[in-house]
Amino acid sequence: VLHGGNISAFSKKYNLNREDILDFSSNINNLFYPKEIEEILKESFPQITQYPELEQEELREIIAQREGINLDNIILGNGSIELIYLIANFLSPCKAKIIVPAFGEYQRALKGFGSRITLFRLLEEEEFRLDLDRLYKDLEEEIIFICNPNNPTGGMIEEEYLDRLIDFIRKKRKFLVLDEAFIDFVEDGFSPKLKAKILNGEDIFIIRSLTKFYGLAGLRIGYALGKKELIERLNLRKPPWNINCFAYQVGLKLLKNKEIPKKIKEKIRKEREFLSKELSKIEHLKLFESKTNFILIKLIHPEVDVKRLQERLAEYKIMIRDSENLNLDSSFFRISIKSNKENKILINSLREILN
Amino acid sequence: VLHGGNISAFSKKYNLNREDILDFSSNINNLFYPKEIEEILKESFPQITQYPELEQEELREIIAQREGINLDNIILGNGSIELIYLIANFLSPCKAKIIVPAFGEYQRALKGFGSRITLFRLLEEEEFRLDLDRLYKDLEEEIIFICNPNNPTGGMIEEEYLDRLIDFIRKKRKFLVLDEAFIDFVEDGFSPKLKAKILNGEDIFIIRSLTKFYGLAGLRIGYALGKKELIERLNLRKPPWNINCFAYQVGLKLLKNKEIPKKIKEKIRKEREFLSKELSKIEHLKLFESKTNFILIKLIHPEVDVKRLQERLAEYKIMIRDSENLNLDSSFFRISIKSNKENKILINSLREILN
Repeated sequence: VLHGGNISAFSKKYNLNREDILDFSSNINNLFYPKEIEEILKESFPQITQYPELEQEELREIIAQREGINLDNIILGNGSIELIYLIANFLSPCKAKIIVPAFGEYQRALKGFGSRITLFRLLEEEEFRLDLDRLYKDLEEEIIFICNPNNPTGGMIEEEYLDRLIDFIRKKRKFLVLDEAFIDFVEDGFSPKLKAKILNGEDIFIIRSLTKFYGLAGLRIGYALGKKELIERLNLRKPPWNINCFAYQVGLKLLKNKEIPKKIKEKIRKEREFLSKELSKIEHLKLFESKTNFILIKLIHPEVDVKRLQERLAEYKIMIRDSENLNLDSSFFRISIKSNKENKILINSLREILN
Repeated sequence: VLHGGNISAFSKKYNLNREDILDFSSNINNLFYPKEIEEILKESFPQITQYPELEQEELREIIAQREGINLDNIILGNGSIELIYLIANFLSPCKAKIIVPAFGEYQRALKGFGSRITLFRLLEEEEFRLDLDRLYKDLEEEIIFICNPNNPTGGMIEEEYLDRLIDFIRKKRKFLVLDEAFIDFVEDGFSPKLKAKILNGEDIFIIRSLTKFYGLAGLRIGYALGKKELIERLNLRKPPWNINCFAYQVGLKLLKNKEIPKKIKEKIRKEREFLSKELSKIEHLKLFESKTNFILIKLIHPEVDVKRLQERLAEYKIMIRDSENLNLDSSFFRISIKSNKENKILINSLREILN
């Protein structure tokens, strides 16, 4: 498993109908899907025959307002993944340090463009918190990739630590890539300190996603923020028209709506609390505190390992994400937060299997 | 003007409603839009919440059948433009020869990745035909980019010449990138000779587009063909999930339908003949023979130049494509073929302006 959410492979393997599968493995917002989207899509049909906006100004303008930065600090991507690849390409060849566990695509992208990678492991015994002193020790890589909030742990670097890290980056003339694909589950827009760093011209890229928060994995839309000179360099390598008409229109309309984000965050917070509380009661599971829409869990069971658990959950038509490609040992798995009804099915299934 | 089809810029400049504009400037199929598409889009709505297929096998399978090649000879792109950038990136840094006039993005992509470019000019006095002996003379570049059928001339390299060129490429250990974005207007699928070259492992990439033929510029979908080893190398640099759910589903359904292509080709052939015949009668226009859905025209008028013509046509709400970024002198412009009614408006407007 390179990624969660591969429903086709799961349905083939276990001979299940796609529609019957409960996908707890993909970590996008699986809970609340804004109903407004179908109307936006229908209204966008006529645009299918025309080239999308070349400069993508209208959408960048809305993001600029929302984040309190400038148009030329923003580049749009066909999903945040396109930006990860663009940035990895732009920085290549380089020596890069990836803070893991993390989304496996940083490694794939950096390797694909010929960079050399070393991993810095967050430790379970430190609750997967980032230890800056340990990171700085013998740090010879010029590029640092961090996922914050972290996927798969769900944890966040405290603002003070992030601040110290960015000061370090500047002093040591290094480069920071901060993947904030899940930040919208935690806060709206930009932390003022981070915004100031971008506008001050630090060597940082921030990557954002609309896919995860709005639950639109099929649509593909994300953006990156950085100082003007860096964004210009990325733009030279970005294919024009990289956002299709539907993604563009949905992006425009959703980002104008201030109510939907509140609803999404509130619903997910509530279900995360419920799910965490109930799962914590199951004896063989150790949960890690999450600020996002997924939870990392360690399975400590005398007889059942995660592979076996996956097989058993498949009988309940439930998909979870194992730790493959996440740089965690095989006792970990990740679930996303779904509707109350679905979460209850997961809880009950786990109880039956593990007790 | 870097590209045709920039309706937003035109509507702002001349203070026109988007809906009223007759866009003869973009060279996608502007004539026949398959009605089936809206139904396909509606059926695809539920897929917006799920990640698109990671391996994109189903769509590659259909293309493989259609072209008579193998799954692993095919890579899909977010529009053919993504493949132009992927290939330019993969080949970089290199010395590349671009046959011009041509689509301006080859230059932008190659430059963006640090390659050195020289241009080989097709000559008006040779009706823009490719003179191989002249090309071979002092050819030190290792990469050759060709648009075939040519955009903007609408002409095609004869198969015998293409064959000789590919033999030359092999003998001299060079690399050919053949952009066939408009080939579907001319023939179905692959020429058997070209197919054999790919399967034999020649150093060729063929780029294809669904956007142009099906008139779906807003949707973004294209593919490239090459030997397995090359496609694998491109895949290392391609972001996953690069085709969104709507583009993917429309691609699947359209490529299964054998009747739509016949209709599109027949309608365009008929209107191209009508438009060519009528425009040829206008004294100050020299037309070049096109096999595609657009026509290159030279304006030879004592008082009106193309800039002036564009201004005058804007009074009729008509957009044409001037020669900027096409490596042609400023006396050329390009029009696409639209419906009979719209073509008549163009013909009458040109008559009024030029006579």
